[in-house]
Amino acid sequence: MKNMSIKINEKLKIGGGGFVIISGPCTIESEIQMLSISKSVKKLGVDILRGGAFKPRTSPHDFQGLRDEGLKIITKVKEIVKLPFISEVVSIKDIEKVSLVADILQVGERNMQNFELLKHLGKTKKPILIKRGKANTINELLMSAEYVKVSGNNKIILCERGIRTFENETRFTLDLSMVPIVKTKSPYPIIVDPSHALGNSELVSALSKAALVVGADGLMVECHNNPKKAMCDGEQSITPSELKALIRDLNKIRKVL
Amino acid sequence: MKNMSIKINEKLKIGGGGFVIISGPCTIESEIQMLSISKSVKKLGVDILRGGAFKPRTSPHDFQGLRDEGLKIITKVKEIVKLPFISEVVSIKDIEKVSLVADILQVGERNMQNFELLKHLGKTKKPILIKRGKANTINELLMSAEYVKVSGNNKIILCERGIRTFENETRFTLDLSMVPIVKTKSPYPIIVDPSHALGNSELVSALSKAALVVGADGLMVECHNNPKKAMCDGEQSITPSELKALIRDLNKIRKVL
Amino acid sequence: MKNMSIKINEKLKIGGGGFVIISGPCTIESEIQMLSISKSVKKLGVDILRGGAFKPRTSPHDFQGLRDEGLKIITKVKEIVKLPFISEVVSIKDIEKVSLVADILQVGERNMQNFELLKHLGKTKKPILIKRGKANTINELLMSAEYVKVSGNNKIILCERGIRTFENETRFTLDLSMVPIVKTKSPYPIIVDPSHALGNSELVSALSKAALVVGADGLMVECHNNPKKAMCDGEQSITPSELKALIRDLNKIRKVL
Amino acid sequence: MKNMSIKINEKLKIGGGGFVIISGPCTIESEIQMLSISKSVKKLGVDILRGGAFKPRTSPHDFQGLRDEGLKIITKVKEIVKLPFISEVVSIKDIEKVSLVADILQVGERNMQNFELLKHLGKTKKPILIKRGKANTINELLMSAEYVKVSGNNKIILCERGIRTFENETRFTLDLSMVPIVKTKSPYPIIVDPSHALGNSELVSALSKAALVVGADGLMVECHNNPKKAMCDGEQSITPSELKALIRDLNKIRKVL
Repeated sequence: MKNMSIKINEKLKIGGGGFVIISGPCTIESEIQMLSISKSVKKLGVDILRGGAFKPRTSPHDFQGLRDEGLKIITKVKEIVKLPFISEVVSIKDIEKVSLVADILQVGERNMQNFELLKHLGKTKKPILIKRGKANTINELLMSAEYVKVSGNNKIILCERGIRTFENETRFTLDLSMVPIVKTKSPYPIIVDPSHALGNSELVSALSKAALVVGADGLMVECHNNPKKAMCDGEQSITPSELKALIRDLNKIRKVL
Repeated sequence: MKNMSIKINEKLKIGGGGFVIISGPCTIESEIQMLSISKSVKKLGVDILRGGAFKPRTSPHDFQGLRDEGLKIITKVKEIVKLPFISEVVSIKDIEKVSLVADILQVGERNMQNFELLKHLGKTKKPILIKRGKANTINELLMSAEYVKVSGNNKIILCERGIRTFENETRFTLDLSMVPIVKTKSPYPIIVDPSHALGNSELVSALSKAALVVGADGLMVECHNNPKKAMCDGEQSITPSELKALIRDLNKIRKVL
Repeated sequence: MKNMSIKINEKLKIGGGGFVIISGPCTIESEIQMLSISKSVKKLGVDILRGGAFKPRTSPHDFQGLRDEGLKIITKVKEIVKLPFISEVVSIKDIEKVSLVADILQVGERNMQNFELLKHLGKTKKPILIKRGKANTINELLMSAEYVKVSGNNKIILCERGIRTFENETRFTLDLSMVPIVKTKSPYPIIVDPSHALGNSELVSALSKAALVVGADGLMVECHNNPKKAMCDGEQSITPSELKALIRDLNKIRKVL
Repeated sequence: MKNMSIKINEKLKIGGGGFVIISGPCTIESEIQMLSISKSVKKLGVDILRGGAFKPRTSPHDFQGLRDEGLKIITKVKEIVKLPFISEVVSIKDIEKVSLVADILQVGERNMQNFELLKHLGKTKKPILIKRGKANTINELLMSAEYVKVSGNNKIILCERGIRTFENETRFTLDLSMVPIVKTKSPYPIIVDPSHALGNSELVSALSKAALVVGADGLMVECHNNPKKAMCDGEQSITPSELKALIRDLNKIRKVL
């Protein structure tokens, strides 16, 4: 099926032959942290910044994100670093305020079948990145995209982030076969997020390269200046120097493909 | 762990040794349909009526429920049949209006990790039935219950409705082992919904009896006067006469246990 | 489909309306142990003794069974206790010698698709109990039965022992829905083995009763005089006094069904 | 962990930095077919021929392979094409005769935990390729390798061929994360078989390239001159011209890595 290309800003689009790199920390911890890592990854050629202000966590006792304070940090960081930003929306009531600062609105895997949220996102004009639920089929993911589309917004980006299987060496099993399958079934660009699937920074580089060669339109990879001290998911975050080496390898492979 | 008992009305509680039967159609189709099936199942001894006004459906092109019209039907049916009613809430903005007519608010499996919804339900005073997500572990279900509890509401009822596995003979695999496990880990009553797990009305009776003997506090079973013409999930709905035979068997088993 | 009944000896058959109890330790540890537990369970009304001489173990460094020595113990125990015996065959070359002492030959879950073994078992005249593989569908199990049948032996008993899923609270997820499904698709009796599925003796009783009410033809349950000192799978073995209580409950339920 | 390199013949080894291509049909259908496809793939640079003489099939009514006749064909083809051959062993009694003609003995996924077979293969001097079972963890695969090793043979090659999950768009879910994980846990070379995992020839090329970039030591890919007429698994076989394009891409990527 013909691939769509989603315009993010005057200079950047996702889909249509390019390969975008989205990077940043799992969660926004402070202005200093977010600014520092954003400057680092910009130098490496990263296209889009990521960082969660609203964090859906399995336990209510875990850190839930800086929330409104996090949105203010996104605004400041964007003024200085001048890169587009993707951030997650977990509730209909937050769509408006996240839209004011983020360039792409993310639907997390736990909300992939939160159809009311999808319908409301379909009424915005922002690009929407939908993560595949940990136990959702490819067809169900496409049906969730359809909720956004029929509500009026076809700027849809899909994201593979691992499915739940019996294998426990990784947090989830990254299903790279879904990339070429989705390409035959839908026009939407596909991003691969190996960080959440693997839960192990040492595996991120290998699977990121695999995402490129199976035909993904980009990568979302967590990067932290000090993964051991990260407030959330540090074990899967790579460092800027690891990201530098990864981007170098990706560029080499892209040249020959 | 000590079992809690959740008061539904002056005459009925869930948990604490009883075995409640929740029944009705998957979705409210019309006043006539809902009234007819409600009268039928009341005669059989059903304790609580079910029927969806707001239906989360995989595809946006499928019937989404009668919505506000469905809530009006619930009100009328309750006046006539005089049984408590459970109905699903799919969005924070609907909590108030569903609370006005329903005695128990249901969180569907797709919203089990819609934490914003859970937090808001925790601020109500209604009993909340949380269905286990199709790919969620028992511990994740208990963490979702914790979201409701820490928000101020401990009237929580858990519900097993099948998990996603490789076996395709049934829609989901009903995990009955979870019932005695949850009993050792939490105080909440557990209801088993075999209808959604199986997707096949011929299997419902056998698994319902199994739910009783593993220690569940009740059963949620779909019943329709004319399953072949049901607007939603007719293939898994049993008829009132099948429900009558099932309740008779359940009563026999309860007597000897 | 019409249920078959498999004759085990002059007094006992499996299928056709009865409910047999197969019990004993996971593995034969010594003559004293095997004789002691066999006498205990016979008193409780157990119909068939179990105990592995040849044990397939994930690691080669784990105890592999007493092997030929175990077969001698089976012979002695049978002379004294006078109950039929089921034991596992893991290799074509062992079929003959296990057949000399065992009344039912068991195919373990790891060998469910060891088709060469199945073909050779099809050439014997012994009843063959085939355990469902941990990741095998119901249809694949029926196809494995077909291998035995087309080789000349239709004395086939199927066994559910749990499938591999993402849920880790139990070793496997016991799929009780398979019992009524298999009954509509094949004539073979079905035994449920909750011990291996659960890996937790505290859950065995509840799921055993569930196996009865979903329509199984019997139960295979591990029992050990001193589960804490068992050489294999002690955590899932119940004691004779727990088995006694279970059989009493099963009899009560059978009476009313 | 230090990677082993397994010597196949004077010119070829698996592991230690190279990337071998194993190709040929799923099953040997006739001398003409096998000779023709073998010549075709040799020209493309394939290192090792594959073709099953003994085929384990889910149903006894499906084609079971040419068996002894197939082994004769392997002998003839090797004389003419002069490439090493890998073929599956499904029974202890066939080890000797398959060893006479094959350079690598394959254990199929269904026999990954057929420990008696593994022990006997451990007594041969042939390289043994062990396919990961469709529901086996990485650790279980390594334990099966351990059975071969402790029996005396450490010429072990592991093979990823997809695991069973809920996603049905592919026959199995290819778990590429396992490649870098196995590399940290064991010294054995790893081959990836995308054909059986995907069950769809159109996806084979993309996932084959992914296997290379995640660090696999080679590829096993089914190739057939006329996939539509293949006796077994034609839907996943690529044609020689597709294989040519794939090998060209693989070589380009290898140069830059």
